[in-house]
Amino acid sequence: MEKLSICGCLLNASMAELPRYLKHPRIDLLEWRLDSFIHNNGQRNAIQALHTLSTFDRHPVVATNRPKREGGFFAGAEEERISVLQKAVEYGADWIDLEDDVHDDHLEWFQTADVRILISHHDFGKTPERVTLQRLVENMAKKGANVVKIATLAQYPEDNLKILDLITFGKKKLAVDVIAFCMGPLGRWSRLACVLLGSPWTYAQLAGQTSAAPGQLTVEELRAALELIL
Amino acid sequence: MEKLSICGCLLNASMAELPRYLKHPRIDLLEWRLDSFIHNNGQRNAIQALHTLSTFDRHPVVATNRPKREGGFFAGAEEERISVLQKAVEYGADWIDLEDDVHDDHLEWFQTADVRILISHHDFGKTPERVTLQRLVENMAKKGANVVKIATLAQYPEDNLKILDLITFGKKKLAVDVIAFCMGPLGRWSRLACVLLGSPWTYAQLAGQTSAAPGQLTVEELRAALELIL
Repeated sequence: MEKLSICGCLLNASMAELPRYLKHPRIDLLEWRLDSFIHNNGQRNAIQALHTLSTFDRHPVVATNRPKREGGFFAGAEEERISVLQKAVEYGADWIDLEDDVHDDHLEWFQTADVRILISHHDFGKTPERVTLQRLVENMAKKGANVVKIATLAQYPEDNLKILDLITFGKKKLAVDVIAFCMGPLGRWSRLACVLLGSPWTYAQLAGQTSAAPGQLTVEELRAALELIL
Repeated sequence: MEKLSICGCLLNASMAELPRYLKHPRIDLLEWRLDSFIHNNGQRNAIQALHTLSTFDRHPVVATNRPKREGGFFAGAEEERISVLQKAVEYGADWIDLEDDVHDDHLEWFQTADVRILISHHDFGKTPERVTLQRLVENMAKKGANVVKIATLAQYPEDNLKILDLITFGKKKLAVDVIAFCMGPLGRWSRLACVLLGSPWTYAQLAGQTSAAPGQLTVEELRAALELIL
């Protein structure tokens, strides 16, 4: 079995704490939620903090600047939101998380930059039907994503199966890696199952950080559960 | 969420140990693998041991006498195999596990007896395609099962999703409870997921017992994993 990777979510930190998160021994990647970071520290300080991406021997970083319309904290103009992500790339972010409604012009900028692209879709209210989900994944793959991420709310236990099926669908039909899991209390186990089914990583809450999404497990819960079932 | 039930598997025990297993505090049901019990103690002693089913305040017991053709230990004639199960019912077993190739005559005997019927199918070599699996579940449901059990070997991670889908399929299309999980190392997490998806119980290894099937988790592993993800 391939290595199962855990991506810790960074929502806030002091400048002094940042290097510790960037090298955290219990994770494999770090998602830097710039929208939350800006919300807590202001945009100027957040961009200043991006300098720590030059830290030696750090984890790969996924830079995310989630807008309010997709459940994030960024409330400013779209151009400004993208400019923060462009700064993150210039400072060395390895991955960029772009929502599936990103403008083509913005997408093109990142496609010509030295960064891998994750295209994401979130539904905090429901899990759509299988066909709808497959169309969403197809559209994201078509945009040239290196990884597609789809996260929906589990209203019923079987929503998890609809979502988890997209990992195999992406790999077999579209030759793209898919991170697919359900949010909410009924979806917790899908955050574990997705990496067992081939998602390149799963997201988890770091000690000292708030939960980045409903139903998220802590890094320690996730590691303990994986140890039990592997 | 409904109560998640764990069925411990009893493969062997001394007469003195039996009451402890029948009231084991960490499980909700006990599967008495009579085939294994006979293999270890002889048929006469096994039938003698069934008297302990009169133990006061014990767990519900599923009596199983798995034949060699379905991966069990019972090597005798079919009539003899069924007669052991009939004894178990007479002594008070609450559930009887019958393989899906059971003779109609034998099935009828149990249908008129005071026992609930679980009809089971095992595939230790592979996980068949979705349509084949659905046909198997339909056929088992048609036999009048109170619960249908299907366990197959996971050769690929996505085999788990094919199998777990049968729980919703059974509930929605056939109005029958289905216990469906994958065997083998790749299937371990499905033993957890099946109860989260509505299977009436999942099987687990009791301390002091050998594993009843490849990939089975211990009761403690299962409980710890459930606590982490609930």
